[in-house]
Order: sequence, then C-alpha cells, then structure tokens
Amino acid sequence: MSLLVVGSVAFDALETPYGKVDRTLGGAATYFSIAASCFTHVNLVGVVGDDFTAKDRAVFRGRRIDISGLERATGKTFFWSGRYGQDPNERVTLVTDLNVFATFRPKLPEAFRASRHVFLANIDPTLQRSVLEQIKTPPRMVALDTMNYWIERAPAELREILKRTHVLMINDAETRMLSSEHNLLRAARRIFAMGPRILIIKRGEHGALMVDNRGAFAVPAFPLEEVHDPTGAGDSFAGGFMGYLASSRGMSDAVLRRAMVYGSVMGSFAVERFGLDRLRKVTRREIDARARHFAKLTQFRL
Amino acid sequence: MSLLVVGSVAFDALETPYGKVDRTLGGAATYFSIAASCFTHVNLVGVVGDDFTAKDRAVFRGRRIDISGLERATGKTFFWSGRYGQDPNERVTLVTDLNVFATFRPKLPEAFRASRHVFLANIDPTLQRSVLEQIKTPPRMVALDTMNYWIERAPAELREILKRTHVLMINDAETRMLSSEHNLLRAARRIFAMGPRILIIKRGEHGALMVDNRGAFAVPAFPLEEVHDPTGAGDSFAGGFMGYLASSRGMSDAVLRRAMVYGSVMGSFAVERFGLDRLRKVTRREIDARARHFAKLTQFRL
Repeated sequence: MSLLVVGSVAFDALETPYGKVDRTLGGAATYFSIAASCFTHVNLVGVVGDDFTAKDRAVFRGRRIDISGLERATGKTFFWSGRYGQDPNERVTLVTDLNVFATFRPKLPEAFRASRHVFLANIDPTLQRSVLEQIKTPPRMVALDTMNYWIERAPAELREILKRTHVLMINDAETRMLSSEHNLLRAARRIFAMGPRILIIKRGEHGALMVDNRGAFAVPAFPLEEVHDPTGAGDSFAGGFMGYLASSRGMSDAVLRRAMVYGSVMGSFAVERFGLDRLRKVTRREIDARARHFAKLTQFRL
Repeated sequence: MSLLVVGSVAFDALETPYGKVDRTLGGAATYFSIAASCFTHVNLVGVVGDDFTAKDRAVFRGRRIDISGLERATGKTFFWSGRYGQDPNERVTLVTDLNVFATFRPKLPEAFRASRHVFLANIDPTLQRSVLEQIKTPPRMVALDTMNYWIERAPAELREILKRTHVLMINDAETRMLSSEHNLLRAARRIFAMGPRILIIKRGEHGALMVDNRGAFAVPAFPLEEVHDPTGAGDSFAGGFMGYLASSRGMSDAVLRRAMVYGSVMGSFAVERFGLDRLRKVTRREIDARARHFAKLTQFRL
C-alpha cells in the first residue's frame, strides 16, 4: 500500500490579509506528504539545497514519511514568494527561484520502485515520465498535477505522460486550457480521450468536482471563518485523496467519493493557519470529525 | 398554502454564445411563478404595458398561477437586454427600460392578502415594504431578494424591510456589500443581526449556500453540458425553493435542505434553453428525477 510522491520541497515567503512569513517550509511534495501521512505510509522524492537544516527536516520526523529519496544538492532550496488578497482564489506570485530544483532529476531509491500509488506533483512532464520509467510494475493508480506553463510549453511531453495517468488533478482554468473547451463536462470527455479515467477539478473556495465515465461528484469547500493562508490547499487535497485511497481496499465509486471528502478535509485544515502550522498538528480524530462536518454540510434526504 | 410573489414581468432581449432572442417574456416574478407553480399555487402581483398580448399571457395559463394581481398600465412593459459570455456568471446589461415598472405600486387583490408565504423579488425596498403592509396576518415566511443598487441607494429602507424578512436570497457580491464583510460566514452573522434568520447565497455556476444559526448547507450547481441562457436562474431557484416550502409541512432543517435542492433543480432547468422555453415544459417527473440526480452528484457515506 505504498504511496510515492515526487515534487517540490520549497521555502515560501507568504503574505495574506492575516499576516506574513518570510521563510516557511512548503512545496507541493511537502504539503502532499504531510497530508497523506495521516492515512498511509508515504515515500517522498524531491530535492533541497544546503540551506535545508535539521530543523526543516524535523517536519517529516515522527510521521509515516520516508525521506530517503529527498536528495540534497549544492545550492539553495527552491524559493517561492506570493501574496493573496481577500479572495483566496486570487494569488500573485512575486518570486520563483528554482535554485537546486532547476536541475532536479528524480531518482527513486530501490525500495520506492514497487510503489502501487503514485502522485506526480506539478513538475516538468519529462521528469514525471522519468519517474514512471523507474517503477517496476505498472502502479495501481497514477495521479498527476500540472499547470498552464507545461500545457503551453510542453504539450507533446504532457500528452505522453497523460497516456499513463489515471487521475488528473488540475484547476478549472487548466482544464479549459488543456481541452480547449470551456464547458467542464465536455472538457472532461476530451481529457478522457487523452488517457486519464478520472478528472478532478480543483476550484479553490468553490470546492472540487470529480468526473468519470459514471458521472460527476461535487464537494464544496469547507466554509471557514478565516482562511489564513491558501498555500498548499490543492496539494493537501491531493494528499488526503491519495492517502485515503492508498489506505483503502478497492477503488469503487463509494471509495472515490470518500477520498474526495478526505481530500477536501485536508485542504480545509491546510488553509486555517500559515504554512504547515495546522496540517502538522491535525489528529486523525479531528480529520474524522471534519469529515462528518462535511456530511452535515452536504447531505440531504429526498 | 398560498404563495405570493411580487416583482417584475418583463420582455428580455438576450445574447449568449448559443444564440440570441429579441423579445422573450421574462422578469423575476415570471421565472419565479413558473418554477413555483410546479409545486404549489402562486399568486402573482406585477405590472405589464399595453404591448403585453394575449399570447404573452398564455404563458401563465393552465398552471397554478393566479394573475388577477397582474396590473395592465398604459405604456410599454419593462424591457431588459443583456449579453452573456462563456462564463455564465459574467453578464453585461445593455438596456434597462423600466417603462410602466417605473411607477409600479403593488396592489394586492383581496384574496392575496391572506398569503402565508411571500417572495419579494428584487424591487425598491419601499415597495417591498408596502406589500407586507397589505397582508393581514404576519406571513409564515417572507423571503426577499435585492441587489447592489438598493444596497447603495436605499440602505435605510432596505434595513427596514430586512427586519421583517425571514429568508434573504442574494448573491455573494451582494452579501459582502450588505455586510461590509468579505468572509461569508461572518457576513451571515452580521445579516442575521439585521433581521433574517436564514441567508441563502446564490453563486451561479458554483451553486448555493444556505446559512442559519444551526450551520451551513451547500448545493452545487448541476453540471450541464450546455448553459444556453443563464437569465432567470436565481428567480427560478427562488421559485423552486419557496414553492417546495409552501407545499411542505413544517420548516425543519430536512425540509429546508430539500427546498434548496428543488430550488437548484429549477435553476438548472431554467438555463438549459432560452428564456422560459425549458421551464414551461418541465414535468414533475423530470423534476424528481433531477433531484435524484442531485443526490447522486453530492451524496456519500463515510
């Protein structure tokens, strides 16, 4: 039941209406693995620079996260800086310094090559492909995130990796760009023709929509009184989704729906505090309580 | 079980990516009453001009709609013209000719003065108030819609009518403007202090959120492959919501949740074709089938 994630580990500088931080550990693979480790064992592959301290590393300690694939390179760790307004869906990127991430070539430790569930976070599709090539048996589920940059700049490489992707997790703008289709249901059909069997559209404060050939399933975002920092919400969602799936038997519609709910639960915790502050402390009891709260938010009887 | 609606009856000229029409019957009270009459008997109060023909009137015939409160005045009927882009939430108003609506003073026929459920569509809050003053016994439920124009131009009059409103149905921008608060949960609390016990936030293609002192309930918009004409979606939602409530016993949380679903069902039918084309033809069997489809879209088991 091992779950592999390959993606960025970064330092973030963030500014939101609730405050600012100059340097906090972030990155897609970080949020994903912290969230997923609440459900299952996670194998992390990424790269950090020589400014990554023992204290930074401690974030992963005491959790079910194997960081033997977290390479250390000479130079600085990936740095991202952004600012959010009152609308958490509106984000301004101030700085993106790839640093050691610019020459990152994912190398899977031998023990990771048997991973049954794989999450390819948003990185160069060529690197995403190289990850799959290092895995021995075709994984049970490959989920992938990408962004407008790769849709525009590396369409052929992206098409190649999409053929081997089961679940595509992107936002609505990316869905429309990738499919050249505004309507999300028609967009989903076009994307299914590219390879994925399941499309999960992340809509920030409007929740998430899962579409497959059986139909659609929608989960709202959890209404919170204060969204302190939206960073990492999507990757925490992915971590909850994949973590729950990897810890479950089968992939029935009922299991996928619960995975969507647990993904939304983890996304909602991620944004309650700055950086990883809330996600690091959340307990399984709190997770299950919030899942029941999601039920209260959405369930009805005809 | 009588349901009263007071609001606009209009001719609309519409342009959407799916086509255009030069003159189709519309207006908040029209969409509301057609939708609500699928559930209960509706008393309509509004005004039309001498360009309103027998053919226009036929839209209400054969339905449970009493139009004895539809006044006929000298002049032209309210005319609205608008254009929608690919994003149905983005609407450009091209023309608003109030015509006979400019001097409209709602007069309730004697038989309407015992209405137990009242929907005050988006009109001058002073007129909304005059409607309530014509009703003998305090209604069981008063629901109200309004817009940015009245929030800015008639704040005192709006505050006055809000004191007598049980359910406020507005969109997210209006919620934020009325409460001077960006966060929707905190906004809801401020609005409860103004009078309403229930706030329903209409979010177009993102569905609807109901907040009361027991918590929140969210319904997504129904994913459709083609939204031909978003006009009237909110008023059809209100018609389904109030029509279902007026036809039900009690106002328990379970009943309110079902009303939210039936409101969403009627909104989803309204946008499938231009103007009233789809809403006029929808059957109760189709309504119930779509309500079950909403369940399939949203329900899960933990």
